[in-house]
Amino acid sequence: MSETYNIAVLVGSLRKESLNRKTAQTLIAVAPASLKLEIVEIGGMSLYNQDLDATAPADWAAFRNKVRPVDAVLFVTPEYNRSVPGVLKNAIDVGSRPYGHSVWDGKPAGVVSVSPGAVGGFGANHHLRQSFVFLNMPAMAQPEAYIGHADKLFDEAGTMTNDGTKKFLGTFMESFAAWVAIHKKKS
Amino acid sequence: MSETYNIAVLVGSLRKESLNRKTAQTLIAVAPASLKLEIVEIGGMSLYNQDLDATAPADWAAFRNKVRPVDAVLFVTPEYNRSVPGVLKNAIDVGSRPYGHSVWDGKPAGVVSVSPGAVGGFGANHHLRQSFVFLNMPAMAQPEAYIGHADKLFDEAGTMTNDGTKKFLGTFMESFAAWVAIHKKKS
Amino acid sequence: MSETYNIAVLVGSLRKESLNRKTAQTLIAVAPASLKLEIVEIGGMSLYNQDLDATAPADWAAFRNKVRPVDAVLFVTPEYNRSVPGVLKNAIDVGSRPYGHSVWDGKPAGVVSVSPGAVGGFGANHHLRQSFVFLNMPAMAQPEAYIGHADKLFDEAGTMTNDGTKKFLGTFMESFAAWVAIHKKKS
Amino acid sequence: MSETYNIAVLVGSLRKESLNRKTAQTLIAVAPASLKLEIVEIGGMSLYNQDLDATAPADWAAFRNKVRPVDAVLFVTPEYNRSVPGVLKNAIDVGSRPYGHSVWDGKPAGVVSVSPGAVGGFGANHHLRQSFVFLNMPAMAQPEAYIGHADKLFDEAGTMTNDGTKKFLGTFMESFAAWVAIHKKKS
Repeated sequence: MSETYNIAVLVGSLRKESLNRKTAQTLIAVAPASLKLEIVEIGGMSLYNQDLDATAPADWAAFRNKVRPVDAVLFVTPEYNRSVPGVLKNAIDVGSRPYGHSVWDGKPAGVVSVSPGAVGGFGANHHLRQSFVFLNMPAMAQPEAYIGHADKLFDEAGTMTNDGTKKFLGTFMESFAAWVAIHKKKS
Repeated sequence: MSETYNIAVLVGSLRKESLNRKTAQTLIAVAPASLKLEIVEIGGMSLYNQDLDATAPADWAAFRNKVRPVDAVLFVTPEYNRSVPGVLKNAIDVGSRPYGHSVWDGKPAGVVSVSPGAVGGFGANHHLRQSFVFLNMPAMAQPEAYIGHADKLFDEAGTMTNDGTKKFLGTFMESFAAWVAIHKKKS
Repeated sequence: MSETYNIAVLVGSLRKESLNRKTAQTLIAVAPASLKLEIVEIGGMSLYNQDLDATAPADWAAFRNKVRPVDAVLFVTPEYNRSVPGVLKNAIDVGSRPYGHSVWDGKPAGVVSVSPGAVGGFGANHHLRQSFVFLNMPAMAQPEAYIGHADKLFDEAGTMTNDGTKKFLGTFMESFAAWVAIHKKKS
Repeated sequence: MSETYNIAVLVGSLRKESLNRKTAQTLIAVAPASLKLEIVEIGGMSLYNQDLDATAPADWAAFRNKVRPVDAVLFVTPEYNRSVPGVLKNAIDVGSRPYGHSVWDGKPAGVVSVSPGAVGGFGANHHLRQSFVFLNMPAMAQPEAYIGHADKLFDEAGTMTNDGTKKFLGTFMESFAAWVAIHKKKS
């Protein structure tokens, strides 16, 4: 019997009709059975401030407690101003502290960037990867996922209707499952 | 009679004894008389969410109103996880929206990264610069300012006691004044 | 009478039918009259080696002598392996040395990245910009130029037939002329 | 009996007394017995030009033939103009082509950046990592290795005399051996 892995999915956009959230839901739908994926919400979190480390806001503790037990993390993110959205970077910063108690340490990471433009969030995708190095998160290299023109991929109900992209996301998730298994072999 | 320019200073760390805030205060102290610098606070700002564009939180409007009228912006930032702190990136994101109403457009930018480590915030410094390209902020190239070992530069009152660094920051601000003047000539 | 500026154009691909060379030729064709543009060849240059600084290969000297007198530099580059082609980076390295005698110092820079793919050379474009900071080259921010699907833009004679892109490149060159003039005012 | 792995070491500087070459030799000296490391020379290689794919220069073929059979690659590089030296990037470009025949595909990578300055080659280190993503090279995250002030680490014979750095490099190589083993398990 094969192993299963718990994966936290972080979505870098807060708006209700977010193309990134829809893409995250598609990724969850097409993932192989070995991955149990759940979106961990990052909206409404207090801004990181080291002075609060000793008396952390409840939202920080709640977020850390959700991420700490998972086996790996999948980031689905738009690009804001050619980099990672502040809201997502703040969640990463909160999870990385206090010093020595990062919830990210050693967890394999995958990243999918999603954008209505042609470039597909390349800038956000690679800025995230630079953080993964420091956070000690082994990051899957291939396939890269820059999902451009994302406003053309879904129907009104939010279901991905573009078969080529859907198939690609399935391939991506199979590769990610293999990546997680290599780094988190449990047996 | 020479012109004067109003400069917003953004500090990327929220903690009270922040080395970045102390460096910002030093930069203000050593700046040439042509620059009128003021720190614009970024703590306590709501996370950017496009759904709120029509009914923006009061803190967004207050921040935008402080940045919009200035001539240029000076960023003083630590590096969090090899990139820009979420709190600073969120302020940038808030200022850049709604689409077409960015407060950053055309404003010359300078960046000083500050860190207790040796690398001096290089990762945050250059990730910020990538955003400046999109935001249409002409960014001063030289001198670059990576202030490392910053925990060794101040006395207990927060005054910079390292003469070499203080002199360098003076040179930096003279270059920045010239950079602002080139791009914002008023006469 | 308005001033004119001499601009070196560097093309980051050596192949004869290079989409980048064709784009460079288009940029030259649509440039305003104030810019005198000339491609400076970078093929066949010896690899940079500091041991040769005192007895520099003739090709290094020839390259430096062509770039030194110009007013500004326009880079037109593909992306190789998500970064700047080695051949172009080598030319930049050669021009930057010996220490203290860089031919790039103070010259305004523009960058156009060109690719048959959708992402339009974003990675090369921004890696180049990181070098510009060190080289003290004020780099134009907007408009950014990521020319994707470039294999669809030209006819068999190498003439750009896509009117939208051609018009955009004209706008780009007008902005670049203004950028050069700001930084190199001669009067 | 434990497995052994063959590792190609690429040195990003060509000068004879290169601090990077000395560091590479130190890394080889302190490596665990499971790693068989050999420097693959990149000097004197022809600049990559796609037009030559069909009639590749002998130096390209020789380089590719040395890298293709190894299990993993260790990059030791200086920073030139805040990025990867052209000479090293050219070697990477040559190894990545012709399309579909990359010698890098699937090989685990490690990177050590070395500089006489304080910043320790951070810019080159992370630009290399961006290429690894495209090249499908799983890159070790931690420990990061930014070796600054490298001109102070060696005696006149080129032996590393700084015990702290030497010990750190030993730790780095043990982690790299584990990283290679995870991705290249042979049994």
